[in-house]
Amino acid sequence: MNKTRLEAFSDGVLAIIITIMVLEIKVPHGHEFADLKPLIPKFLSYILSFIYVGIYWNNHHYLLHGLSKVNGKILWANMHLLFWLSLIPVATGWMGEHNFAKTAMALYGAILLLSAIAYFILERIIIMAEGKNSVLAKAIGYEIKGIFSAVLYILGIAFSFYSEWISGAAYFIVALLWLIPDKRIEKVFASKN
Amino acid sequence: MNKTRLEAFSDGVLAIIITIMVLEIKVPHGHEFADLKPLIPKFLSYILSFIYVGIYWNNHHYLLHGLSKVNGKILWANMHLLFWLSLIPVATGWMGEHNFAKTAMALYGAILLLSAIAYFILERIIIMAEGKNSVLAKAIGYEIKGIFSAVLYILGIAFSFYSEWISGAAYFIVALLWLIPDKRIEKVFASKN
Amino acid sequence: MNKTRLEAFSDGVLAIIITIMVLEIKVPHGHEFADLKPLIPKFLSYILSFIYVGIYWNNHHYLLHGLSKVNGKILWANMHLLFWLSLIPVATGWMGEHNFAKTAMALYGAILLLSAIAYFILERIIIMAEGKNSVLAKAIGYEIKGIFSAVLYILGIAFSFYSEWISGAAYFIVALLWLIPDKRIEKVFASKN
Amino acid sequence: MNKTRLEAFSDGVLAIIITIMVLEIKVPHGHEFADLKPLIPKFLSYILSFIYVGIYWNNHHYLLHGLSKVNGKILWANMHLLFWLSLIPVATGWMGEHNFAKTAMALYGAILLLSAIAYFILERIIIMAEGKNSVLAKAIGYEIKGIFSAVLYILGIAFSFYSEWISGAAYFIVALLWLIPDKRIEKVFASKN
Repeated sequence: MNKTRLEAFSDGVLAIIITIMVLEIKVPHGHEFADLKPLIPKFLSYILSFIYVGIYWNNHHYLLHGLSKVNGKILWANMHLLFWLSLIPVATGWMGEHNFAKTAMALYGAILLLSAIAYFILERIIIMAEGKNSVLAKAIGYEIKGIFSAVLYILGIAFSFYSEWISGAAYFIVALLWLIPDKRIEKVFASKN
Repeated sequence: MNKTRLEAFSDGVLAIIITIMVLEIKVPHGHEFADLKPLIPKFLSYILSFIYVGIYWNNHHYLLHGLSKVNGKILWANMHLLFWLSLIPVATGWMGEHNFAKTAMALYGAILLLSAIAYFILERIIIMAEGKNSVLAKAIGYEIKGIFSAVLYILGIAFSFYSEWISGAAYFIVALLWLIPDKRIEKVFASKN
Repeated sequence: MNKTRLEAFSDGVLAIIITIMVLEIKVPHGHEFADLKPLIPKFLSYILSFIYVGIYWNNHHYLLHGLSKVNGKILWANMHLLFWLSLIPVATGWMGEHNFAKTAMALYGAILLLSAIAYFILERIIIMAEGKNSVLAKAIGYEIKGIFSAVLYILGIAFSFYSEWISGAAYFIVALLWLIPDKRIEKVFASKN
Repeated sequence: MNKTRLEAFSDGVLAIIITIMVLEIKVPHGHEFADLKPLIPKFLSYILSFIYVGIYWNNHHYLLHGLSKVNGKILWANMHLLFWLSLIPVATGWMGEHNFAKTAMALYGAILLLSAIAYFILERIIIMAEGKNSVLAKAIGYEIKGIFSAVLYILGIAFSFYSEWISGAAYFIVALLWLIPDKRIEKVFASKN
């Protein structure tokens, strides 16, 4: 099976996910600046989700970079990841529409957590297929960042019922964590090429 | 004619189909968890259709893998397949909106059946163009799985007026049938490469 | 400039145009088969437009196949073509929503005519850049089919005020005209490769 | 990291942005030509934004053409540019919906200005990575056109409260400025290849 087409399909889906999210920012009805005010929570949640999809696109790229052969398991693990990511626009819209309401914060965190789990599964399946000595297996090593993210998502979901600010902060910290480039991975791939 | 562009266009259309389906899961109006309840049938039908489009993408990939030259007939048989697949989001939305109502189940089954027929036509046209001794012709052989799927679709449509559960089960079984990797095809292609 | 990226961008836009048209077929509100009735004109206009976009994609493919170098003029002539094609979903939606009303038929014909003109301009600019002895220039020769299509579009627009059936027939005949493979072009390209 | 996938993803996002804008031109409710009248401002703003996205796609193409290696900074600067461009459909929709109201003109100008700044940042980061003697650094030289555009955007935003016509003219002039091919850049790249 062809890696190029798997990448192209995933890129297409991710490009559509990141772009249709903007459709949730509906054109405001009035024509005063005050009419833009209800768009502020929508805009903020759009920024956060845009960064998240960007991070997933970036990491997905690394994940498949080290891949030499696609099998059926990898293909479906990839579909599974795309499935959860495809729900981000709905969760983002709900969060923005109801001004970061507690239930929306919990749902958003749940979608992020399930996406992270799907990513982890895909990673394991790729490493299983490529072998323990593959470039990817070496590059990833001990997944401190992934575990830390999962803990923060769970905290974000749990605390959403107490304060929407705490869960918002948790999701924001995870995004920052992944925005900062992972020197380790870059180095391993650079030394290979 | 260029196979790459046919694949790229089909991938684009399939990526859009699979992603715009999520637009049917409209952002709920209230901000309580109870407001998510009407989303459950929409979510379930989204999962089923996501798997179906995924299966078609996967199989489409195999179909074109063995193809050496695109002609006008193949191109239009491919368009015909994309046409029926492009109606899956509408049928999915109807099914989800009306909680798997009997008529929606029948329509959904009809779209799946027509997609399967379009797929079968494309397959025959490719084999006709490539010759009986081509990799694809050998890989496919006797199409027990395709015939079985068609029978299940027809049963699903027929029984939708009696019970929506039976047709739901029929469509679900077909999806499972195709999710399980077809060792036979994989082996023939692997032995070729 | 890179031909591949021009093709990829055009394929992306055409794939999105062909797929978002289906969004005009809104999920019906009731759950009886009778509720599908207002979808019939929408469905018929969707079929017609699907075929048209398919034809443009196919022909666009041929047009760029013979191209060796992209310049700024070709790029903008291509954008101009994509612009008119991008209006097909709106015209299709209007035609379907109002059951092939006369004004909608005229607008639809106008968009088709402007798309055809844009295609003709792109063709001339490519031939100008490639030279009179290029593969494309030889393949196209005297454009009887293009002129005939334009005449039919104009007839369709003019007669839409008299009878929506005549214009519908005109647009349908043009689609058929282009669906039938152009042996001449295929032969010239085949002899080259 | 792979330049091809960065280009493919950006092309995908730009193709979707340029195409979903047309969804703001909602199908009119009546079926008389008079019912098309409210679509005129929407249509005009669609044309302007279509040209802008086309220009960005074109320039983005040049920017990445000279690029030999993608790093994390380039990737995120590119995401940042796509972020602002993804807001063009919303601003276009607002402008069209309210007939070029002053506030909408100001917002549209602000999105264009922020896109231009994002483009400038991406350009600097690429030049920093490629070195002062790279093809791109030589091709761009002193950015008179970029500075002039920024000045016109700011004038457009400032004068939008005085007259929507002045800001409209300002945005239109910038578009024209970039439509005219930049002979200088084309020459440098041509001499390289």
